Amino acid sequence: MESGMKILVQKFGGTSVANLECMKKVREKVQAGLNKGYKMVVVLSARSGETNRLLALASEWSSTPDPAECDSLVSTGEQVSIALFTMLLKDAGIRARSLLAWQIPIITDDDHGNARIKSIDSQHLRGYLDEYDVLVVAGFQGCTESQRITTLGRGGSDTSAVALAAALGSVECEIYTDVDGVYTTDPNICSSARKMDRVAYEEMLEMASMGAKVLHIRSVEFAKKYKVPVRVRSTFSDDPGTLVTQEDSSMEAVLVSGIAYDKDQARVTLHDLPDVPGVAAAIFGPLSEKGVLVDMIVQNTSLDGHTDMTFTISRKDLKQTLAIMEEVKERTGATDVVSDVNVAKVSAIGVGMRNHSGVAARAFSALTQEGINILMISTSEIKITILIQEKYVELAVRILHDTFGLDWDIN
Amino acid sequence: MESGMKILVQKFGGTSVANLECMKKVREKVQAGLNKGYKMVVVLSARSGETNRLLALASEWSSTPDPAECDSLVSTGEQVSIALFTMLLKDAGIRARSLLAWQIPIITDDDHGNARIKSIDSQHLRGYLDEYDVLVVAGFQGCTESQRITTLGRGGSDTSAVALAAALGSVECEIYTDVDGVYTTDPNICSSARKMDRVAYEEMLEMASMGAKVLHIRSVEFAKKYKVPVRVRSTFSDDPGTLVTQEDSSMEAVLVSGIAYDKDQARVTLHDLPDVPGVAAAIFGPLSEKGVLVDMIVQNTSLDGHTDMTFTISRKDLKQTLAIMEEVKERTGATDVVSDVNVAKVSAIGVGMRNHSGVAARAFSALTQEGINILMISTSEIKITILIQEKYVELAVRILHDTFGLDWDIN
Repeated sequence: MESGMKILVQKFGGTSVANLECMKKVREKVQAGLNKGYKMVVVLSARSGETNRLLALASEWSSTPDPAECDSLVSTGEQVSIALFTMLLKDAGIRARSLLAWQIPIITDDDHGNARIKSIDSQHLRGYLDEYDVLVVAGFQGCTESQRITTLGRGGSDTSAVALAAALGSVECEIYTDVDGVYTTDPNICSSARKMDRVAYEEMLEMASMGAKVLHIRSVEFAKKYKVPVRVRSTFSDDPGTLVTQEDSSMEAVLVSGIAYDKDQARVTLHDLPDVPGVAAAIFGPLSEKGVLVDMIVQNTSLDGHTDMTFTISRKDLKQTLAIMEEVKERTGATDVVSDVNVAKVSAIGVGMRNHSGVAARAFSALTQEGINILMISTSEIKITILIQEKYVELAVRILHDTFGLDWDIN
Repeated sequence: MESGMKILVQKFGGTSVANLECMKKVREKVQAGLNKGYKMVVVLSARSGETNRLLALASEWSSTPDPAECDSLVSTGEQVSIALFTMLLKDAGIRARSLLAWQIPIITDDDHGNARIKSIDSQHLRGYLDEYDVLVVAGFQGCTESQRITTLGRGGSDTSAVALAAALGSVECEIYTDVDGVYTTDPNICSSARKMDRVAYEEMLEMASMGAKVLHIRSVEFAKKYKVPVRVRSTFSDDPGTLVTQEDSSMEAVLVSGIAYDKDQARVTLHDLPDVPGVAAAIFGPLSEKGVLVDMIVQNTSLDGHTDMTFTISRKDLKQTLAIMEEVKERTGATDVVSDVNVAKVSAIGVGMRNHSGVAARAFSALTQEGINILMISTSEIKITILIQEKYVELAVRILHDTFGLDWDIN
């Protein structure tokens, strides 16, 4: 790392670059960074709606669009954003240029549509930072070693930003969005939800995977791996937002940091499976082959050499899953396959629960007192997940939020 | 050049790739080439309207858009075309891939917005042709040695195609458009206009510069320099079109091959200029500095050491030109500056006139007989240009077309 060059990476999502007015707000944020003496690396998404428009074009042209061509197509969305924004910077007399992934390059594998970053030429980038004060980089895109354009999957611009911050040793990676930070739970269903000042990577990972859509999950993994502090904040306010960072003792003092929920759940149960080795593989092997992601799994204690197996999946996969389970039933001799789509899961997340027992008991007791029936339970080191009937989701979130005192500002 | 590989370059303009239906027609043309045993290189423009949409975005964002950023922006138009078309080829089981200029690369100078091709890595391209049967290349774009995206100026996709044909030794470069060839004159104003089977590069150059907008002028210069036969034909018919090629004896047997016209003319006259050395430079120097292109120039014989100077320019430049001429008048002591926008020029073009005198006389006499007053005359080896009042343009075109027997099929 060169001494003397302070670098700040900022990332702005689709709503932040949607039109000229929004982009002028973005320019103010960049100017603020320059005023503090930073060299700026600004990562932009496609303008909102643009990626969907391009994907719709692809589906119009082909029922199974070639993945490499599709990547080249949709990557134009970010190309347009960075060119327009750089024009705006240059109009304000700022020394700036745009950079596409291949011009850096940001090298990825060749898994088109869902590529992973392998390396970034930070030496080359630092050379540009000698010449320019702001580099405007296309998010979401990469380039294979054989020079084909790739994309990183939905939300991939967050990953681009964090990877650039890691490569350049940026003091922080600021992810600008249209909310002012990460909340203890969804403010739309719990009025006492509170913006957190800090949250641990591990907690953020669990929240992101539960559908708290502020940060793309892969970007959090990246940030955790390379210890990049990520600040989630709003383009349209001056609030310092939420810092996603390594856990420290103050975080561990808090039992539960946030309550997440996910309504996209369907439950499938196979009854009276023979409890023999290989039966789990017989169920989950075919699902995995078809790309069906299984979430929670519970197996009952064996009775007379037979058992029940229950698992949850995304609702969109239910039809395919049931077809596969009919075959599994034939093959294994299970008596019955039943399913339920009126279920949802609620989770309490916190690095503090590692060192404390009784968190699960408190959660179950609070829900049961309100008459909410617990259908499935799954626990990990820093998370308790409970499957309930969908109609109780909002109530359960509020109960858990209260139970663990998340409305108090103790962070 | 490798033996055994027959390569055909085809270029399709914006109207040919406007939508899915059109692109399916294009695929038929490509398939026809494959059926004849060719490896195909297909150059596409942006879908019609797309480049203008992107340029409008740029003007919305900035009154003076940065030229390099503007190139990166508008180059996305072709990127979208080639990705969509390649999807369509792959759906039909054709081994194809898209190529952006930087992926080949097509190296240009850094004159953004109007770049010139310096080199094409034909070795690299031939490598791709071993692997694929069709390469779908983005027209209109290039890449500097320092990896910035450039564009070749309006109509630049024709130039891309001809340059690729030259680099690869393509048997022919087929330029597909929405007309079925090059006509002896504009069929909209002369019903006896006839499609030519062949036309010489030099003739085509003169016609293109006169606003016969079938082929971009720089592409014809390129084709002439590298002796690439160019066939202009329609995407929507099977007509063999017009072959633009080196002149041969059959072409020389024809006095005049075509009649072109251009209404975008304004005439400016300075009266009573002192006829001293440097007076022409005093007029045309400042015009050239401001980027005003002067077309025809006539200077009268000096009388009493004074002379009149008349020239024509594009109408859009008239206001600026008159402002400059007021200064010139002050400086030189000319008595008067007058201008006229109701003028237009008509040209007779033909490589055959090189070896024959009397062509100009026949043209003047035919126009005069119909009462058309000749305002200015300019002649070159293969062209006679006459400035007349704009209202006579259509009549003059028809008279000259008849006079030189262009309605007869003698090509």
